[in-house]
Amino acid sequence: MSNLIATYQLYGKPGSFGKKAEGIALGLTIGSWTDLPLLEQQQLQQHKGNVVSVTEFEDSPHPLKPDEIKAVVKISYPSANFSADMPAILTTVFGKLSLDGEVKLLDLDFDEALLAHFPGPRFGIDGIRALLGVTGRPLVMSIFKGVIGRDLDFLAAQLRQQALGGVDLVKDDEILFDNPLTPFEQRITTGKNVLQQAFEETGHRTLYAVNLSGRTSGLRDKAKKARELGADALLFNVHAYGLDVLQELAEDTEVGLPLMAHPAFSGAFTSSSFYGLATPLALGKLVRYAGADFSLFPSPYGSVALEKAQALALGEELVKESPLKRSFPVPSAGIHPGLVPLLINDFGIDSIINAGGGVHGHPDGAAGGGRAFRQAVDAVLSKTTLTDASEQHEELKTALEIWG
Amino acid sequence: MSNLIATYQLYGKPGSFGKKAEGIALGLTIGSWTDLPLLEQQQLQQHKGNVVSVTEFEDSPHPLKPDEIKAVVKISYPSANFSADMPAILTTVFGKLSLDGEVKLLDLDFDEALLAHFPGPRFGIDGIRALLGVTGRPLVMSIFKGVIGRDLDFLAAQLRQQALGGVDLVKDDEILFDNPLTPFEQRITTGKNVLQQAFEETGHRTLYAVNLSGRTSGLRDKAKKARELGADALLFNVHAYGLDVLQELAEDTEVGLPLMAHPAFSGAFTSSSFYGLATPLALGKLVRYAGADFSLFPSPYGSVALEKAQALALGEELVKESPLKRSFPVPSAGIHPGLVPLLINDFGIDSIINAGGGVHGHPDGAAGGGRAFRQAVDAVLSKTTLTDASEQHEELKTALEIWG
Ligand SMILES: [Mg+2]
Ligand SMILES: [Mg+2]
Repeated sequence: MSNLIATYQLYGKPGSFGKKAEGIALGLTIGSWTDLPLLEQQQLQQHKGNVVSVTEFEDSPHPLKPDEIKAVVKISYPSANFSADMPAILTTVFGKLSLDGEVKLLDLDFDEALLAHFPGPRFGIDGIRALLGVTGRPLVMSIFKGVIGRDLDFLAAQLRQQALGGVDLVKDDEILFDNPLTPFEQRITTGKNVLQQAFEETGHRTLYAVNLSGRTSGLRDKAKKARELGADALLFNVHAYGLDVLQELAEDTEVGLPLMAHPAFSGAFTSSSFYGLATPLALGKLVRYAGADFSLFPSPYGSVALEKAQALALGEELVKESPLKRSFPVPSAGIHPGLVPLLINDFGIDSIINAGGGVHGHPDGAAGGGRAFRQAVDAVLSKTTLTDASEQHEELKTALEIWG
Repeated sequence: MSNLIATYQLYGKPGSFGKKAEGIALGLTIGSWTDLPLLEQQQLQQHKGNVVSVTEFEDSPHPLKPDEIKAVVKISYPSANFSADMPAILTTVFGKLSLDGEVKLLDLDFDEALLAHFPGPRFGIDGIRALLGVTGRPLVMSIFKGVIGRDLDFLAAQLRQQALGGVDLVKDDEILFDNPLTPFEQRITTGKNVLQQAFEETGHRTLYAVNLSGRTSGLRDKAKKARELGADALLFNVHAYGLDVLQELAEDTEVGLPLMAHPAFSGAFTSSSFYGLATPLALGKLVRYAGADFSLFPSPYGSVALEKAQALALGEELVKESPLKRSFPVPSAGIHPGLVPLLINDFGIDSIINAGGGVHGHPDGAAGGGRAFRQAVDAVLSKTTLTDASEQHEELKTALEIWG
């Protein structure tokens, strides 16, 4: 029998969690049990939720309620109870329960039968590397900056500077939507020309992820149009739409483009220590299952920082052993070339080094910023210190002087 | 110039909020300002976010950080920056910002030009009343209970009992998805027969809201099929899909059915005092704008309770003056007949009294439970106390004995 196991964090009085867990397991499945006649119990057995484990943490008191402690409970839900889609799964394991006091959904274990309904990334890390022809090093990505209210010439110039610095990917600003100054289709065609020109000059290929936005039912046609126009990849604000919308984009062979999941809005349901979803589940496991080739998330280094353990666990969810392809971890915000050794140490070479200010803020412009990052990556891979490498690399030297 | 004003709750040191607010207003729009040449400032002026107000609450210290206080800031975003859809709006005002520490989105003020892009309820309170032929009293609704793993006969019998008690609406369990025992289409046709039969016996019309579930792109066709089969209304787990998906259902004239928004999963982003969205915004204003005819939310009375002020503010969002039709507030959980005076006092007659256990747990069965609720409503409207009314109404008397 196929099952989905949900792991929850609860707070309450020591000894109270077994009963609470039993209430959840029944309340979110068949409703009641002990008062049912034996025959009905037999009929409903295969639909009954079950408590798998209850672990109390005596040493983890509630920060505001001195008589309460933390507990972690695991409950298994028969897959027979829900259709194999994200909305049904989220509603089953965290629908009503999300409103029931301090309870946080830490993890979901899909068994093989359930997981078979989810596509995972179409390209994955290896597929993206194949597109770029780059192996053996982290990819370097940069983002457009200050493009709201600007025209196509502005975008084109900014894209060109980024590409000339040797970055592998450039992403749209996630707050750049359909607008008359820089329409979606023209961003794609203009971007394509700019990047082809840069490729001819430098021999380096840069991909551009354009922001797929607008009404839900129009997304797939728009994505297909993007592909026809030669788009490289799609940026998508999945958490402002829904995981199933991402999944439908990933599953559609006519879309067939790499998908970059942006974490916009996700903080609304991941930031609290008491409520919502754990970040590694929301931005790691679930976006991978739904088909993101890339998952952006706050790096553990910047001012908008994710807790280190959470960021590492998130990265691990994206790349760990699974029947599904691996998604690229893209720790973002607060990234400068001096952090490259730490980034590679923390997220490995199968990750993406993504910078905004750390590219555009370089005194030699975005091209210089991109070069500094590439120089830093090369240094780490050749086991040279950044300081040593900076002796021979002007842009890296400048970056280290500014950002350390 | 059209603008969207977002209201945020922040925590920080007294005097720090003006700078923080300015950073948000620029960071979520044009990025920078003071370092721009005058000509560019002129060009970007109409895209610049602006701080509308900053209010510090010296008397509201952070519960865990003694040197921090609460503040409420309002920021206006030019509508020129985003397309007029929920995902673009949420990404603009709370995309990256949702990940930026303790910041909660309290409210959004759409101006008339922006609001014109949102449909609101197709039926609204008056339209639903017209369907039922009921005016001048709150509607009474009940829900299926313990239907997971049960067959159509079980559902039909339970539906009949509820209808015989005189409830106006019955909703599916939100965790009942497509399944071989009680398939969507057969729930509709069977339900229709049962309710027609009950109507012929009692003269009272009951509507059945069937749970619309499954993959996102299939929802509209499934909803149209439901309408063809004679479905009365659709229950929808909007927060497990996305507000825009609800909106597309509401806008589609071929769907054309009343939509009941369930709060499942919403606790993930409304429960925290520090993060996410305020409940009146998420379950009130935004579901109304997106087109829900009904919004279910935790009542302020039960064990899964919403804070009273929040619940009242939510109800108010659903019915207050607006170019859009009004949505029915459906405070749910912990409702029994003894609460009817309080419910009508708190939510008015343009609300729905919705019960599960308070209907099914009645010693005279769901039919008796429904009658007790209807008797309680009649008593309040005729300015009789429930105790007095119970002298003449057996079911109400029994209910009061059990639940008080
Ligand atoms: Mg951005
Ligand atoms: Mg339910």
